[in-house]
Amino acid sequence: MMKHIKRLIEIALDEDIGSGDITTDNLVEPDVMGKGLIIAKEDFLLAGIHVAGRVFKYLDSEAIFRPFYKDGDPVENGKTVAEIRGKLRALLTGERTALNFLQRLSGIATGVRNYVQIIENKNIRLADTRKTVPGWRVLDKYAVRVGGGFNHRTGLFDGVLIKDNHIEVFGDLFKAVEHIRKNVHHLVKIEVEVSNMDQVRQALDANVDVIMLDNMSIQQIRKAVSVINKRAVVEVSGGITQKMLKRLIHTGVDIISSGALTHSVKSVDISMHIQTVT
Amino acid sequence: MMKHIKRLIEIALDEDIGSGDITTDNLVEPDVMGKGLIIAKEDFLLAGIHVAGRVFKYLDSEAIFRPFYKDGDPVENGKTVAEIRGKLRALLTGERTALNFLQRLSGIATGVRNYVQIIENKNIRLADTRKTVPGWRVLDKYAVRVGGGFNHRTGLFDGVLIKDNHIEVFGDLFKAVEHIRKNVHHLVKIEVEVSNMDQVRQALDANVDVIMLDNMSIQQIRKAVSVINKRAVVEVSGGITQKMLKRLIHTGVDIISSGALTHSVKSVDISMHIQTVT
Amino acid sequence: MMKHIKRLIEIALDEDIGSGDITTDNLVEPDVMGKGLIIAKEDFLLAGIHVAGRVFKYLDSEAIFRPFYKDGDPVENGKTVAEIRGKLRALLTGERTALNFLQRLSGIATGVRNYVQIIENKNIRLADTRKTVPGWRVLDKYAVRVGGGFNHRTGLFDGVLIKDNHIEVFGDLFKAVEHIRKNVHHLVKIEVEVSNMDQVRQALDANVDVIMLDNMSIQQIRKAVSVINKRAVVEVSGGITQKMLKRLIHTGVDIISSGALTHSVKSVDISMHIQTVT
Amino acid sequence: MMKHIKRLIEIALDEDIGSGDITTDNLVEPDVMGKGLIIAKEDFLLAGIHVAGRVFKYLDSEAIFRPFYKDGDPVENGKTVAEIRGKLRALLTGERTALNFLQRLSGIATGVRNYVQIIENKNIRLADTRKTVPGWRVLDKYAVRVGGGFNHRTGLFDGVLIKDNHIEVFGDLFKAVEHIRKNVHHLVKIEVEVSNMDQVRQALDANVDVIMLDNMSIQQIRKAVSVINKRAVVEVSGGITQKMLKRLIHTGVDIISSGALTHSVKSVDISMHIQTVT
Amino acid sequence: MMKHIKRLIEIALDEDIGSGDITTDNLVEPDVMGKGLIIAKEDFLLAGIHVAGRVFKYLDSEAIFRPFYKDGDPVENGKTVAEIRGKLRALLTGERTALNFLQRLSGIATGVRNYVQIIENKNIRLADTRKTVPGWRVLDKYAVRVGGGFNHRTGLFDGVLIKDNHIEVFGDLFKAVEHIRKNVHHLVKIEVEVSNMDQVRQALDANVDVIMLDNMSIQQIRKAVSVINKRAVVEVSGGITQKMLKRLIHTGVDIISSGALTHSVKSVDISMHIQTVT
Amino acid sequence: MMKHIKRLIEIALDEDIGSGDITTDNLVEPDVMGKGLIIAKEDFLLAGIHVAGRVFKYLDSEAIFRPFYKDGDPVENGKTVAEIRGKLRALLTGERTALNFLQRLSGIATGVRNYVQIIENKNIRLADTRKTVPGWRVLDKYAVRVGGGFNHRTGLFDGVLIKDNHIEVFGDLFKAVEHIRKNVHHLVKIEVEVSNMDQVRQALDANVDVIMLDNMSIQQIRKAVSVINKRAVVEVSGGITQKMLKRLIHTGVDIISSGALTHSVKSVDISMHIQTVT
Repeated sequence: MMKHIKRLIEIALDEDIGSGDITTDNLVEPDVMGKGLIIAKEDFLLAGIHVAGRVFKYLDSEAIFRPFYKDGDPVENGKTVAEIRGKLRALLTGERTALNFLQRLSGIATGVRNYVQIIENKNIRLADTRKTVPGWRVLDKYAVRVGGGFNHRTGLFDGVLIKDNHIEVFGDLFKAVEHIRKNVHHLVKIEVEVSNMDQVRQALDANVDVIMLDNMSIQQIRKAVSVINKRAVVEVSGGITQKMLKRLIHTGVDIISSGALTHSVKSVDISMHIQTVT
Repeated sequence: MMKHIKRLIEIALDEDIGSGDITTDNLVEPDVMGKGLIIAKEDFLLAGIHVAGRVFKYLDSEAIFRPFYKDGDPVENGKTVAEIRGKLRALLTGERTALNFLQRLSGIATGVRNYVQIIENKNIRLADTRKTVPGWRVLDKYAVRVGGGFNHRTGLFDGVLIKDNHIEVFGDLFKAVEHIRKNVHHLVKIEVEVSNMDQVRQALDANVDVIMLDNMSIQQIRKAVSVINKRAVVEVSGGITQKMLKRLIHTGVDIISSGALTHSVKSVDISMHIQTVT
Repeated sequence: MMKHIKRLIEIALDEDIGSGDITTDNLVEPDVMGKGLIIAKEDFLLAGIHVAGRVFKYLDSEAIFRPFYKDGDPVENGKTVAEIRGKLRALLTGERTALNFLQRLSGIATGVRNYVQIIENKNIRLADTRKTVPGWRVLDKYAVRVGGGFNHRTGLFDGVLIKDNHIEVFGDLFKAVEHIRKNVHHLVKIEVEVSNMDQVRQALDANVDVIMLDNMSIQQIRKAVSVINKRAVVEVSGGITQKMLKRLIHTGVDIISSGALTHSVKSVDISMHIQTVT
Repeated sequence: MMKHIKRLIEIALDEDIGSGDITTDNLVEPDVMGKGLIIAKEDFLLAGIHVAGRVFKYLDSEAIFRPFYKDGDPVENGKTVAEIRGKLRALLTGERTALNFLQRLSGIATGVRNYVQIIENKNIRLADTRKTVPGWRVLDKYAVRVGGGFNHRTGLFDGVLIKDNHIEVFGDLFKAVEHIRKNVHHLVKIEVEVSNMDQVRQALDANVDVIMLDNMSIQQIRKAVSVINKRAVVEVSGGITQKMLKRLIHTGVDIISSGALTHSVKSVDISMHIQTVT
Repeated sequence: MMKHIKRLIEIALDEDIGSGDITTDNLVEPDVMGKGLIIAKEDFLLAGIHVAGRVFKYLDSEAIFRPFYKDGDPVENGKTVAEIRGKLRALLTGERTALNFLQRLSGIATGVRNYVQIIENKNIRLADTRKTVPGWRVLDKYAVRVGGGFNHRTGLFDGVLIKDNHIEVFGDLFKAVEHIRKNVHHLVKIEVEVSNMDQVRQALDANVDVIMLDNMSIQQIRKAVSVINKRAVVEVSGGITQKMLKRLIHTGVDIISSGALTHSVKSVDISMHIQTVT
Repeated sequence: MMKHIKRLIEIALDEDIGSGDITTDNLVEPDVMGKGLIIAKEDFLLAGIHVAGRVFKYLDSEAIFRPFYKDGDPVENGKTVAEIRGKLRALLTGERTALNFLQRLSGIATGVRNYVQIIENKNIRLADTRKTVPGWRVLDKYAVRVGGGFNHRTGLFDGVLIKDNHIEVFGDLFKAVEHIRKNVHHLVKIEVEVSNMDQVRQALDANVDVIMLDNMSIQQIRKAVSVINKRAVVEVSGGITQKMLKRLIHTGVDIISSGALTHSVKSVDISMHIQTVT
């Protein structure tokens, strides 16, 4: 995960700083030291505090970052989340990038937490999808876990998920599963996306590990759960609203996955106050 | 811009594909050809269609991408946005990444367009900020333009913006401006963020090019505009809601900038239907 | 897989060519065309023929590569494996690197095929390990498949394998499995390495998907298979010789994995004959 | 050399860890400290011990690596080769990659040492070739030196070696040498590969620095050495077995080069035992 | 700026060291410590001393670099500019690269200083251009500032400069300015290159910020300055010799820019003396 | 060489274009085609014409580049050197970078040619040094060859050159040579830098291949040449002016090397005229 975060921080600073921060570099001498306070401007669940710290350390490797909360902590409006001491230039130049990371990651975690609180039932997993912002896969999925959600597979490489388009081009759900099982290594499970009861039965015949019910009504979901009868893990996906969620948690499904957790995020409001230190 | 998009596409495909798309690669032979249709699942303003095309071309350099709409076009729910023909594997493996780009960029453009329609007045610019998603600066700012908005400076390198923290550490707004003017090259303008009328006057004395009114009330803004009296361009920023916007457009300001245009985006719904071509 | 191969080809050509092929560049003018024949100097099973082709295409993007055999084909001593036409400089400069790839990959495939022929039983998988040459993971594992073997997990990211050192530091096999199951995503299976019958029973209690019997005697393996009784997949690993293999295939195990398939490879002998084309 | 090793370590860890070590990261908390012992499971000549150390330092920059042997030392079965203390996660995640490097490099050195012991004669150099594993050029050549062998040129850039294919396309051995001598810089020597006595004489006429006798019989080699009569350094190459070697050392040749030293390596057996440190 | 310098140092060391410094590595053991003195062999203005230091630190991260002068200081022939202590290998291997940076950067600064001394008038800026050595943009422009010169825009991204070729293809100077002003962000100024009085007037009508007089005679320049009459900043560019410069400073222009400051540089003479430290 | 040029072109375009060419992109639509003529503004020897072409192809892969002269040709003031047709944006954006390469490389070649014409004697090599501009090693050395000069070793990796600092730290010239000869591979020669007759004799005793006379007077050089008496190649280096050169060519030395050929280059004047093509 470190490698991906490091690369994204480098890109973020590169696209913001480019050939130089002409405001800061012309106002502040290179050796002046400063202190910055990261301050909550609303209530939220914290995620990514160490990413913010790393942004400043990238610009000043000797900066000292003291977080007062840790990822997963609720933070109240007005609280100081962290203090950073280091070169004043690094603080002023890094401020926006550090906050951009922190506001989005905390936004994801806060949104996930709100959903998880609705579910209550410990045996149902709220899971993310691959609908993450390009470049942010590991960060988005990390923030989901911080919010109390669960990850689905990381990408196309660590789990088999046969979707509608796969079946469309292969032609036969049952044979597709057989075909894949012969070739994938023995530590990966097989999931199939189904949209009707007939496909549910084919999936059961093919002995899949997980069945994803795609855009089914609550009634259909209940029926599918009953037919599957614990012979496979049951996942539902697609158009999960808060209202929908409240009904889903009583259908007997095992996993509820939602793309909106990561593709439509509301950033939380966080600011930074910077001073010279003498 | 090409370089940044290419890099982000590479990272996005890398984080999703990793060591291989084990579902697709085990179901589809390498040489089978396919066709994919990108389909709108709601009304939106299109942005990023060529980015989506490039994702598929990255996986199959001979794929043929035919967009039926161009960036900036409104698209209605149910319409086919584009067709892609190429290796079936490339279509199945690239689908999610292509859509992740397209859904977010169209989401930004759609949101900006909604704001721009409120402004109506051609002489007021709706501008973005540096509150973009790390890694997406040029793409986010491109989508803002597609939606009818304007860009603020690209980053810290192509414009001077003296903010509250800069004045805090430098100590004197007027001297800060003087100091910078002596050093920056002669093709860059100077903007200062102010929060009260006293600072407005200092900024005018210092002969700045642009004055940003930060989190002021409508009444304060009116007064500032009157005092500035065309001697500097006037920008307002901070907490811009649709209601706020309707009032701001009658205050005489030149530029209204909003971070939410890019930091809190609602993705639009787009899907893809893939078939084998024989 | 393409990305990894491309990167390795670049590194290989870089370390060989460095600041320039001073023999070829001083003997051959840039535009002279040539033809190269890749010739088997012993019997082997072919693997990596397209990697060899890509080496030449990297040096001359318009070179034309015509393989006469495909990966997985047995090739007899003296046969021409492929023909390459392109810039003479590209042929002379790329020869050694292309052969270095081809000789090692075919060496792996040939070795695996020899083992697979001993097993005969279609229901037992001969699998590789993570004991691949650093930098060659995807290529080594590809050559194993070409030889008729199966892959184990690709790396640490796409399968849980709790090994002796993990249990040593975690303290309890059963709890370790419980702990992991709560956190990993729902498409990954769990395997545990065990070295005695007590651990076999703990693994069964924990309901693991796969049990790896580490360095057990044939007698112990038989007993373990009987105790496990199809409740988990059984893998054996460690010190697999041809003699050992003949006995293992009658013990009822499902998977036999061997590091030597990739860590101790005998290259096969292949050469190249190059001519000017007028 | 450092740059090449660093790059290869990064690639090796990247291909193994990918999106994360899901076994270790789910079992071990990030701050737990551990100790690892690297233990010889057979007798061998050590090479690459610092590469192994660097693998762990890459994962935990504060890890402390204490080798008990240095490269070039013979190690006996059962001995502890090195101890590493650092983050437990770094030890568990890096174990396989570190051993993969160490086992192959020690395998090369051990093999070379066995050949060198046969030669005995201090005036004959046992040299490697460019038949190294792609990506491993500098490491493979380093291990050869550790084993008591000598390096041939590093790549195509630091020595002229006119081979059969070069003469085939250039048309005339003598003129080829003249042509090259006029162009290469004045610190590089010229070697020619010859396969018969006629070519030996042409090479002598052209005043080459080194003559490589390719796949000649012992009798032919003796004759060539006599004809050359110290006017050029004499190298023999091709199909060097231990038996062949014993006869070659009495023919008067200066250099014996062998591709098998690096292209067909038997890894040595080394394991690692890891514990928690409290 | 750091990122660009780091990248250039890496490339410079890579192209010089390649597979290894075979002289130093074969003469000096890895752990021997040394001391190096950087010594001026002529009088010059120092620039880039920290770049030289970074070269050695790249090769030996624990090396200690003590500069006795800072950038912008005049240095006399024979003086010791800096002392470096660290691994002897790092000193010997890095010497040439460190000096190559230092000699060119000090050469630029010295040349600029000579021109600036001619100008005397504090209100005229001597500015660089984009005629820098590819790869050296930020370094070349830094050295110009050290010499007392000013930077023009950094590149194509941070200032609008409409040149002859732009007007040629767009067709109309006035409309070109209008067109651009509508689209660029509000912190960038607009400059136009003109070659006759008619264009000067069009530029004034279009209300440009800066007018560049291209290759005009002193007489024409005087006239243009008079016509412009402070309504725009006036820059002259092209063929600036010392003699030309003396006349230009009395014409009333604001900025004099010269490509030769960076495209035709005379390196200053600096050497290094290295000793073993015991 | 291609790899190094490609990398430098990428860096050069990156540092110039950054986030976008705001002048060109706002004036010219993406699909407009154009034609550019590269025109000599003084007499010079052409070098790097294909590098210029590649700059444009990098920005527009379908651009067509037609050079009218080839590297090594003398070009007269006013002549059209090459024509480029492609996207107008690519021409306008790439112009400066292409010319920056071409002007410097032709400047080197022209300077070298002027020196070579003085030497006349075909048996004396005018050679470059490692005093090239960081990042430009292969390009600088290429331009030297175009100008009729010869290359010295490429870097620290392809030739042994024992310099004053090496002898200072090793302590004994003779032993240093012996030490190195035992370790370097058999295709590399050994050169020693000497500053007095005593060192000349030690070098001869050590049987070195090349002796470099460092900063000796013409008289000392004559004496050294006489003492060496063809037993080693003789190189002189240091402070080579045109006047010095005329005297050196009659001293019997084999090689004259000069850092100024590449470290103090006068760019030649070349411009570009761009038009729209309809």
